[in-house]
Amino acid sequence: MARKSSSNTAGKPIRCRAAIARNPGEPLVIEEVMVAAPKSREVRIKIICTSLCPVDVTFWKSKHPPAIFPRILGHEAMGVVESVGEGIHEVAEGDTVIPIFLPDCSECTDCLSTKSNLCSKLSFSISPWIDREQTSRFTDINGETVYHFMFISSFSEYTVVDIAHVTKIDPETPPERACLFTCGVAAGVGAAWKKANVEAGTSVAIFGLGAIGLAVAEGARLCGAKRIIGVDVNPDKFEIGKKFGVTDFVNSRSCGDKTVSEVIIEMTGGGADYCFECVGSTSLVHEAYACCRKAWGKTIVLGFDQSGAMLSFNSHYVIDNGKTLTGALFGGLKPKSDIPVLIKRYMAKELQLDEFVTHEVDFKDINNAFNLLLEGKSLRCVIWMNK
Amino acid sequence: MARKSSSNTAGKPIRCRAAIARNPGEPLVIEEVMVAAPKSREVRIKIICTSLCPVDVTFWKSKHPPAIFPRILGHEAMGVVESVGEGIHEVAEGDTVIPIFLPDCSECTDCLSTKSNLCSKLSFSISPWIDREQTSRFTDINGETVYHFMFISSFSEYTVVDIAHVTKIDPETPPERACLFTCGVAAGVGAAWKKANVEAGTSVAIFGLGAIGLAVAEGARLCGAKRIIGVDVNPDKFEIGKKFGVTDFVNSRSCGDKTVSEVIIEMTGGGADYCFECVGSTSLVHEAYACCRKAWGKTIVLGFDQSGAMLSFNSHYVIDNGKTLTGALFGGLKPKSDIPVLIKRYMAKELQLDEFVTHEVDFKDINNAFNLLLEGKSLRCVIWMNK
Ligand SMILES: [Zn+2]
Ligand SMILES: [Zn+2]
Ligand SMILES: [Zn+2]
Ligand SMILES: [Zn+2]
Repeated sequence: MARKSSSNTAGKPIRCRAAIARNPGEPLVIEEVMVAAPKSREVRIKIICTSLCPVDVTFWKSKHPPAIFPRILGHEAMGVVESVGEGIHEVAEGDTVIPIFLPDCSECTDCLSTKSNLCSKLSFSISPWIDREQTSRFTDINGETVYHFMFISSFSEYTVVDIAHVTKIDPETPPERACLFTCGVAAGVGAAWKKANVEAGTSVAIFGLGAIGLAVAEGARLCGAKRIIGVDVNPDKFEIGKKFGVTDFVNSRSCGDKTVSEVIIEMTGGGADYCFECVGSTSLVHEAYACCRKAWGKTIVLGFDQSGAMLSFNSHYVIDNGKTLTGALFGGLKPKSDIPVLIKRYMAKELQLDEFVTHEVDFKDINNAFNLLLEGKSLRCVIWMNK
Repeated sequence: MARKSSSNTAGKPIRCRAAIARNPGEPLVIEEVMVAAPKSREVRIKIICTSLCPVDVTFWKSKHPPAIFPRILGHEAMGVVESVGEGIHEVAEGDTVIPIFLPDCSECTDCLSTKSNLCSKLSFSISPWIDREQTSRFTDINGETVYHFMFISSFSEYTVVDIAHVTKIDPETPPERACLFTCGVAAGVGAAWKKANVEAGTSVAIFGLGAIGLAVAEGARLCGAKRIIGVDVNPDKFEIGKKFGVTDFVNSRSCGDKTVSEVIIEMTGGGADYCFECVGSTSLVHEAYACCRKAWGKTIVLGFDQSGAMLSFNSHYVIDNGKTLTGALFGGLKPKSDIPVLIKRYMAKELQLDEFVTHEVDFKDINNAFNLLLEGKSLRCVIWMNK
């Protein structure tokens, strides 16, 4: 990427194309929008490409808050800084960046700690605004407000985001791989590498081999796990899983009269050292906890079940077995410090993510990306803004 | 202790005094009993002193299994090896030992791992027998079987235990301190030192300042915790707590319109780095989890609520906050390897346990020890077999 390409758009609104979700579940419409200049501590980014995530689909289909319309969805992207607002020293025009939904203010106790990725100054939410002051930088051709999504809104040729959501990356990173480091794929790798800190030679069980589960497998492989057991209802997932290090497969629909946890306890001679729940099912979390190794086993909850779903554990069992339960948002990864490390490991070919990109489409065909995901055909479909 | 005092009782039964629990809740009766010679892989121990633990009281009062009568209670003791059965090389006649309820077979995956104290060969239970073959080494003067308790039965001048329950210790250890290393006091210290691995400079909240909670405080102090917050309904516990490193006190009955967790979040500016539940109340576990620090906070469950009590956590909260929940039996301590280390730290005056012994009585007055505990007057009362 060429740096210092003198921008003659800085400080002015930019008119460009964006894919707007106007009504729940209806195809996105590519329209012209006005993208305001970045305000203080904001960055305007020219999006190069963006990948579609199931979370986009959830808030595209949903009729209830925090779903809101008209909105520019998209939150997994790679781009180049077009211009910056006041007080921005961290990035400059021409820098290659990835916007990340999880904030990293670089100032609070949490952002300054290597042990936390949960900023205590800026909270995360499925916000319809760019900021906590509830303003938007998007208007449509009629001058009506268009809402933001997850502080990112990458289904637009240009977007504006708070500097807390911007990570500068190696400009040599292929754009269609860089966008994988912004959400689910990075989260899965991070859950194994950062949150669970999987030790070499250990056993891992992964409940659900969707993109996040497969990324957990890749993260566990990166950490040197010896045995990586994938659990899914779809046996085809084993073949895909092998590409990411899955060594064994359990079809949770054909365990006979045994529970999945019983099967895994048998396979591992006592339980897996680490269990990851990537489906979003409380009953699977219970199974995962049941088959993680007593004394040192860890169960990591990654999948979101319905709001209000409860996890329940027998109190004596918790004491008598000494197992650990935890959860992680974005795999425990710190956007500004851990992501560049993972990208370095990707560039060094230690971390293999290429197989996550199963499809690529032009921006005008963005609705095809939605169809591929809805039909279960894609892991990640990359949408190119101007190829 | 003099070693190699040639035993002329080896291989023969010993007739001695024991305090027998004949009926639930009725005073123990000191009677003569026959203590059989140790069988293969067993050790007969001359008890020097033993301390009374609330667990003894529970199974003395209870009318329901696993309570059983007549039984020799007691499981926190220090003694000297009188004789050993076949195949015992780990200890010899005259060695100073402490019997410990948690087995350590020295052979299985768990006993060989530094990360587990949960033997997978010999399970722990409130067993009425000395062994897994369901035999007893005690008979009363009428030749009737007297039951064992927790594989120990230390309310007797002599007892027989499996070598898996014997830890050899420094003979210089004062007997009335050595017995503290066998159960609750060690467990509390271990929960902070071994299971939670409390880091220096951190904050700790302890729910319940009974013997275990106070021992957690002492363990946290040993690890260099900066702030140790004790939570109890009894404000007198703060004065006692100070002796073990408690720096702050929260009376859970006078938090006004706030919950205990809200008070602790305020005191610590976001939550305690470690929370320990030592009462055995699921609602307190929920409070502890609520006020442990997001991202890196750990909640350790130590207190036994009623059988069947469930701990419940909101699934989204578990993911969004990244906190860790775990539990520990005997504080995660390995009886044969960790206990000698803690005794060394006690002898070096780094670990302070003297204040746990609030009372001492002669064996003939053992029922007084029960009364002192029932009246809430003692932390640990040491019972001397022959002073
Ligand atoms: Zn995503
Ligand atoms: Zn922050
Ligand atoms: Zn063992
Ligand atoms: Zn005890």
